[in-house]
Amino acid sequence: MNKKTADEVHAAILVIGDEILSGRTKDKNIGYIAEYLTAIGIDVREVRVVPDDAPGIVAAINALRERYDYLFTTGGIGPTHDDITADCVAAAFGVKLEVRDDAVAQMKTRYPEMELTPARLRMARIPDGGELIVNSVSGAPGFKIGNVIVMAGVPKIMQAMLDAVAPTLKGGRPLLSETRSGAIKEGDIAEALGELQKRFPETMMGSYPGYGDKGFNTSIVVRARDRAVLDEAVAQVEKMIAAVTAKT
Amino acid sequence: MNKKTADEVHAAILVIGDEILSGRTKDKNIGYIAEYLTAIGIDVREVRVVPDDAPGIVAAINALRERYDYLFTTGGIGPTHDDITADCVAAAFGVKLEVRDDAVAQMKTRYPEMELTPARLRMARIPDGGELIVNSVSGAPGFKIGNVIVMAGVPKIMQAMLDAVAPTLKGGRPLLSETRSGAIKEGDIAEALGELQKRFPETMMGSYPGYGDKGFNTSIVVRARDRAVLDEAVAQVEKMIAAVTAKT
Repeated sequence: MNKKTADEVHAAILVIGDEILSGRTKDKNIGYIAEYLTAIGIDVREVRVVPDDAPGIVAAINALRERYDYLFTTGGIGPTHDDITADCVAAAFGVKLEVRDDAVAQMKTRYPEMELTPARLRMARIPDGGELIVNSVSGAPGFKIGNVIVMAGVPKIMQAMLDAVAPTLKGGRPLLSETRSGAIKEGDIAEALGELQKRFPETMMGSYPGYGDKGFNTSIVVRARDRAVLDEAVAQVEKMIAAVTAKT
Repeated sequence: MNKKTADEVHAAILVIGDEILSGRTKDKNIGYIAEYLTAIGIDVREVRVVPDDAPGIVAAINALRERYDYLFTTGGIGPTHDDITADCVAAAFGVKLEVRDDAVAQMKTRYPEMELTPARLRMARIPDGGELIVNSVSGAPGFKIGNVIVMAGVPKIMQAMLDAVAPTLKGGRPLLSETRSGAIKEGDIAEALGELQKRFPETMMGSYPGYGDKGFNTSIVVRARDRAVLDEAVAQVEKMIAAVTAKT
């Protein structure tokens, strides 16, 4: 289920929030994080979205942090009653959750005039042993504990946190990717592509059909960690697309 | 973890595809399906995204179909080697997977001139006992087996399949929703909102902070199945926002 070689680093993303599951908020974080991590050599192997419900969040955190090298969470670290991610991470790790001075200091640095109400102090509660992740947008920090990286759900803030934490992560050998497209139907290249995949087992070939205003189109994505292997496979994919296009 | 009352119907979504996990394709189906199902009284309670890897897909199908009333899958039902969803559904149910005449007939109806290559015939393989879901866009059908609804990954095709299958589904009492927003910081309403949530236990109140060009803003979403309860709670939320806005 999670086979990997020594030069691969695998991650999961856990999106926490009723608003995503109701469709009210359209998630923008999964695609962003996936693309970002792929570029630094971390392969996302699973994503889950769960509601603001403590037992479900704790179970998902424990399942995913054990299975993957890293777990990235988004959402549920604000000041309101439905923000329970820090509580759930602490419960998953079996550690205490208390207001920490360094977290309060970060919040004050960004907004010196802000009144530290009990609600806002909720955001300074960090599970014991967690390292803060700077939030350059709104102050209240994220945190990293073990292999779990806890970030905000608001895209701008999440993106700033990802920039802050990325240099501390261990990346694998990045997966290189090339895409070749044509105004062809997927069914017309399926067999030839299957043969190419067998011929280049070190690559991953994917076929992504689209249907736009101009009718069918198909993109072939070839991925590999070795540039020479990738280039050789892509050259064959180009030949295949040209041959099919000439026929139709 | 999955508490529900008699008038609730719960569902999960399983998105299948490497292209989503690499960030190459940004998923547009989760939000669409979530909003669609919410409107017909089906609550999405979990989403997973998994790669094109058979054991992982089978495990996810079995975990989710047992836990929820419905499971909706997207992706992996095309003609290429990486399209293995039908195989995995058949394996999960322990049934045969064979080319079915009624599926071939649907494909021919849409594209009478199409050559039925072995690759295209892959798309007519339906797990034994499955009912076809019409694909008015490109012919190759989806299917429903037990409580599992198998749809395409291309958004236009998926949306057509959802329209086709929706009338056959059992919906619960729809969750009504109202949103009230203000140019306020989440921390300024957190305590009052927590009190309101306690006062209206039949509602679900969520707070969604945003950060745009004009600075902070916060939306309060109140959800309930009873219109009168919802209206009463929303009136209190409006009062709360007005009080905070007057103070700042």
